[in-house]
Amino acid sequence: MAGNSFGQIFRITTFGESHGPAIGVTIDGCPSGIIIDEVFIQSELDRRKPGQSRITTQRKESDTVTILSGVFEGRSTGTPLTMLIPNEDQRSKDYDHVKASYRPSHADYAYDQKYGFRDYRGGGRSSARETAARVAAGAIAKLFLNDRGVRIQAYVSRVGAVQLDIPYNKLDLSLAEENIVRCPDTKTAERMIALIDQTRKEGDTVGGIISCVIFGAPAGLGEPVFDKLHAELGKAMLSVNAVQGFEYGSGFEGAFNKGSENNDAYYTDEAGAVRTRTNKSGGIQGGISNGEDIYFRVAFKPVATIMQVQETVDQNGNSVNVVGKGRHDPCVLPRAVPIVEAMAALVITDHFLRNQMYKS
Amino acid sequence: MAGNSFGQIFRITTFGESHGPAIGVTIDGCPSGIIIDEVFIQSELDRRKPGQSRITTQRKESDTVTILSGVFEGRSTGTPLTMLIPNEDQRSKDYDHVKASYRPSHADYAYDQKYGFRDYRGGGRSSARETAARVAAGAIAKLFLNDRGVRIQAYVSRVGAVQLDIPYNKLDLSLAEENIVRCPDTKTAERMIALIDQTRKEGDTVGGIISCVIFGAPAGLGEPVFDKLHAELGKAMLSVNAVQGFEYGSGFEGAFNKGSENNDAYYTDEAGAVRTRTNKSGGIQGGISNGEDIYFRVAFKPVATIMQVQETVDQNGNSVNVVGKGRHDPCVLPRAVPIVEAMAALVITDHFLRNQMYKS
Amino acid sequence: MAGNSFGQIFRITTFGESHGPAIGVTIDGCPSGIIIDEVFIQSELDRRKPGQSRITTQRKESDTVTILSGVFEGRSTGTPLTMLIPNEDQRSKDYDHVKASYRPSHADYAYDQKYGFRDYRGGGRSSARETAARVAAGAIAKLFLNDRGVRIQAYVSRVGAVQLDIPYNKLDLSLAEENIVRCPDTKTAERMIALIDQTRKEGDTVGGIISCVIFGAPAGLGEPVFDKLHAELGKAMLSVNAVQGFEYGSGFEGAFNKGSENNDAYYTDEAGAVRTRTNKSGGIQGGISNGEDIYFRVAFKPVATIMQVQETVDQNGNSVNVVGKGRHDPCVLPRAVPIVEAMAALVITDHFLRNQMYKS
Amino acid sequence: MAGNSFGQIFRITTFGESHGPAIGVTIDGCPSGIIIDEVFIQSELDRRKPGQSRITTQRKESDTVTILSGVFEGRSTGTPLTMLIPNEDQRSKDYDHVKASYRPSHADYAYDQKYGFRDYRGGGRSSARETAARVAAGAIAKLFLNDRGVRIQAYVSRVGAVQLDIPYNKLDLSLAEENIVRCPDTKTAERMIALIDQTRKEGDTVGGIISCVIFGAPAGLGEPVFDKLHAELGKAMLSVNAVQGFEYGSGFEGAFNKGSENNDAYYTDEAGAVRTRTNKSGGIQGGISNGEDIYFRVAFKPVATIMQVQETVDQNGNSVNVVGKGRHDPCVLPRAVPIVEAMAALVITDHFLRNQMYKS
Repeated sequence: MAGNSFGQIFRITTFGESHGPAIGVTIDGCPSGIIIDEVFIQSELDRRKPGQSRITTQRKESDTVTILSGVFEGRSTGTPLTMLIPNEDQRSKDYDHVKASYRPSHADYAYDQKYGFRDYRGGGRSSARETAARVAAGAIAKLFLNDRGVRIQAYVSRVGAVQLDIPYNKLDLSLAEENIVRCPDTKTAERMIALIDQTRKEGDTVGGIISCVIFGAPAGLGEPVFDKLHAELGKAMLSVNAVQGFEYGSGFEGAFNKGSENNDAYYTDEAGAVRTRTNKSGGIQGGISNGEDIYFRVAFKPVATIMQVQETVDQNGNSVNVVGKGRHDPCVLPRAVPIVEAMAALVITDHFLRNQMYKS
Repeated sequence: MAGNSFGQIFRITTFGESHGPAIGVTIDGCPSGIIIDEVFIQSELDRRKPGQSRITTQRKESDTVTILSGVFEGRSTGTPLTMLIPNEDQRSKDYDHVKASYRPSHADYAYDQKYGFRDYRGGGRSSARETAARVAAGAIAKLFLNDRGVRIQAYVSRVGAVQLDIPYNKLDLSLAEENIVRCPDTKTAERMIALIDQTRKEGDTVGGIISCVIFGAPAGLGEPVFDKLHAELGKAMLSVNAVQGFEYGSGFEGAFNKGSENNDAYYTDEAGAVRTRTNKSGGIQGGISNGEDIYFRVAFKPVATIMQVQETVDQNGNSVNVVGKGRHDPCVLPRAVPIVEAMAALVITDHFLRNQMYKS
Repeated sequence: MAGNSFGQIFRITTFGESHGPAIGVTIDGCPSGIIIDEVFIQSELDRRKPGQSRITTQRKESDTVTILSGVFEGRSTGTPLTMLIPNEDQRSKDYDHVKASYRPSHADYAYDQKYGFRDYRGGGRSSARETAARVAAGAIAKLFLNDRGVRIQAYVSRVGAVQLDIPYNKLDLSLAEENIVRCPDTKTAERMIALIDQTRKEGDTVGGIISCVIFGAPAGLGEPVFDKLHAELGKAMLSVNAVQGFEYGSGFEGAFNKGSENNDAYYTDEAGAVRTRTNKSGGIQGGISNGEDIYFRVAFKPVATIMQVQETVDQNGNSVNVVGKGRHDPCVLPRAVPIVEAMAALVITDHFLRNQMYKS
Repeated sequence: MAGNSFGQIFRITTFGESHGPAIGVTIDGCPSGIIIDEVFIQSELDRRKPGQSRITTQRKESDTVTILSGVFEGRSTGTPLTMLIPNEDQRSKDYDHVKASYRPSHADYAYDQKYGFRDYRGGGRSSARETAARVAAGAIAKLFLNDRGVRIQAYVSRVGAVQLDIPYNKLDLSLAEENIVRCPDTKTAERMIALIDQTRKEGDTVGGIISCVIFGAPAGLGEPVFDKLHAELGKAMLSVNAVQGFEYGSGFEGAFNKGSENNDAYYTDEAGAVRTRTNKSGGIQGGISNGEDIYFRVAFKPVATIMQVQETVDQNGNSVNVVGKGRHDPCVLPRAVPIVEAMAALVITDHFLRNQMYKS
């Protein structure tokens, strides 16, 4: 109801503010018997953590995760699984200048309108730091899915004007982790990195697109009519900080085509499986997965905190100027790749379990 | 859980198949005391109903709504409000040819995979006929919102290659209802209609974009971190048949800009209200409405049923051909305008009520 | 949220008022493939309907159920299953005398306080007529459970001072349906019937206890810590009109015993199954079924409508007298037996499906 | 879904096992602006903690609570409020003897059946230690309710055969905290204490009844038809470890009376308020509070762990004996008083907020 939980069966609740003692997450509905690989969970957090390369914020946080409950002798018990990530590199005074003024295109003003007051330090609850908890929970979901042959891979496909035009199935997606911008095409990656470098020097920020592919999802996932699989994926992605667009399959471009161009013909392959000749549907038809690859694209706006003077007002409505201080990302996309994967893993795991209700 | 309910407080559950006795909807959580204007509810359904113009399907259904419960002496009582819409123009035999074969890019195959079998007549539950129930519920939500100064207006902004490039605040949106394609710019409307006419003659279909604006929503709506207002709007829209993309505010295009270009500066207007000079944020910051206009765009794929021969398989995996029969829409967008508005009204009403929990 | 839905996976929403056009229920989450025996559903409603014997109200309603959706070719499709029961014998004028006054120990005053106004005809939504919708949904749940070897049997074990002291496992429960009070012991049944007859002649009403046994439920049902199986059964029963007490297993009496008297020792039976020598736990330990019989008792207060002059106030707080009019039950217990069974069936079915989430 | 959350708007999720690093609770939906009195929260935990008197277990745990999130400058922020209680006095080896065997009338066997395996140390998740998290959350709810004039008071009204027969409104309930058994009548308290002392010496345990009164709750709380206020209170109480019965108002005894005896006549008092002359309804009519005192009784079974030899089986079904080890309560009731109050506070707070949805 208050919006801090996600999922129906594999249900997570995140908690914690940017500058409190810790952030964390509880998974209620985690099946028992999953082997909990803590090294893997930490490695996922490392992909998201600040300070990992020169194109991210230089804040230093180890983002070390501790499991508080729900695991016994290395396996999930079926009881609530809580993970805690202490906050370390808190420079609350970096935020004194925004205590009373509203940063443009941040959540400050809206939070004050809604709750009456706010923890202003580092954005408090509205900080993207909260997504570390999602990544931890998503790692558990990935462990669950790995055992069932489902693999999720996201990558940066656009930064500002620099776009990767090659479709996912012509790329070696494993290369995405080989460079600091997480783009699987080396040349495009270099251009993206150069653009981010330049943007940071200008005290500005830049947005872009993350593409994501889900391989190996079985047919039958998704609950029409409201909880269509792509509607759930869309909500999951749009709930991530800075996201302002989502499309799946042929997306916006496909909308401009004719039906005869956008339809996917069925055929039976040599192994006797029903397949589609094309996959404009992005692996989802009528809101239910059909066994083909699921793919979608997520648009991230440029980070709102810039190192330039901006006009704004204070809590009394007086006109003031604000300039970004502290250490911020010129482009969130490289660090957002594991977040997109985590949210996708949470949705697929939840629907995997939801779909089991029909197996009676 | 099974996906047929939407909303947390103002919660609707739709039921019914395309070719069963009726479809309908129950609203649980409708506040008491709303004056229920049945003429208005019917007029909303009339905007969605088939056969309303030459560019829609020629099926004839009056879509007459009956209220079964929750209203006494013209006002809502606070108890479940159920509305029923009988199915009339059912030509089940139009679907005998698809009983055993899977229509390309329809839900047929996915439903069989999920549920084991399906009501194949007219798509059964996967038919867009279900959206009539959403429009009826959305009409109640609009009555609630009207009393609170909130107004919602959607319109067709693109059909195939024909795009309306004028921003919403330079248009007279009331003109949208003046033509059969529901585009507020007369010249563009004519080009859209011509394109749909031509597409129908080719036995083909065409997609496009519906834009929607919400005027008068108060600041404070939306529940971070997962139920951000735009995430809820996104899910609502993506749950509508044929939708494959959603963006709000500056959307995908804004993602390619710099932070300095995409940020909205705050100022205090002459009336003393805090406002933003631009509205790239689409009226939502940090997932919470900030009092500015909320606007978003929804991409609809071309209708999957085309009057052309298509390759597919039957339930046994044998290769067969299928040709669309019956009476179908060459373009769903004109009839989808009230659906988009209804889903928006449901989201805003639900969050209006959810936001009240903080007023204690 | 607004209280008209019950269950998490097998989720029902009831709607309708006593004197509106109809009452009904939608089941969302009904598994596909259940053979829907309409004759059985109707027979369950017949056990609850008014006018079935001389000790119930003499109102005449056929309570004929119609299925609107979710069933195709005799089987559930997995889509929402809606059933409608038209209201027939409505004598709204029987209630003119209570339009403005509050009947003692009825919901009238509380509804007015909550909703601002109410449909006063026959109690409107607060009428026990709503339970007919529960019985219809419970019949579907029974069909589901029958296929899995689960059988539910309730019976009247006390009316006023007349109590059946024989434990359930010493009784032939099938005899409960052989007499009009639904007590499986013939002699006790006769005494109960005599007491109800006498009470009706006095213009008074009488309460009592319904006992219920669930045979064949597998071990593993119930979700600790809050959704313990007995907590869910307790809520289900307490949600039925006129219920004011619930106990399971050794109940209140067991609470007065020593641990050494109340514990159930485990042993392995000849078939190799782990069993308990006694069953003070009522088949539930730690909130989870253990495979033994589940049994509980439900206390119903005497019906509030009596044919005697009672002191009360009107909507303006003025002192007035009220006398029951119309045709009312002197004792609800005989008609409540199928309601208790229906609610138990809904709980067990829901938890049967919930428990499947762990089977991955 | 998995049962570790409670409440709809003021929603708590508890986590943690008896012998893990910590237990805790997250409240999602806590209104902003509540002054968080940490001393009060700790004092509530102190009422529940082990070792507080000679008639409780002699385990020593300080049960020190830490707030991790959701509070800023002493007030709730409206974001998730998480509290942590580290586990201290863990003697896991006390449980080695039950690692492979099932303690009679404990959750051991049922957990194994449900989850496949279990954290056997101290009962793991099934331990009543989990209720400390409920008490912490309940303390926040009490702070919310105190500001609104609602006060909740529970007390022990029966231990084994020793019963307090004086109705609550003839007692000075504040005396309940003056003795170690928490019974407001000094003489009865002494007899209860003597009985518990004796029972402990016998290596046995004893159950009883806790009564609870809610003063000052406004009319209008409760959501018919399924979430009636007493149904929600009933579920809350039945979800507490060892509870096997619940009744409200005139309860089981009232069920045996005539309607003319059990009805509550309305009148208008000198201040112009509508009141009832008696309160057999326990402050709830039609599932909605009517402004009178709400009262109910909760039956607790004797603790299952006894210091006597008991017959049972091990995981392989072999017959074994088990004897209680460690430090256990001979009677849980004195420590359960704050748990009953906490659960009541959670229900009333949640329904207070739920009722606000109608205030639009």
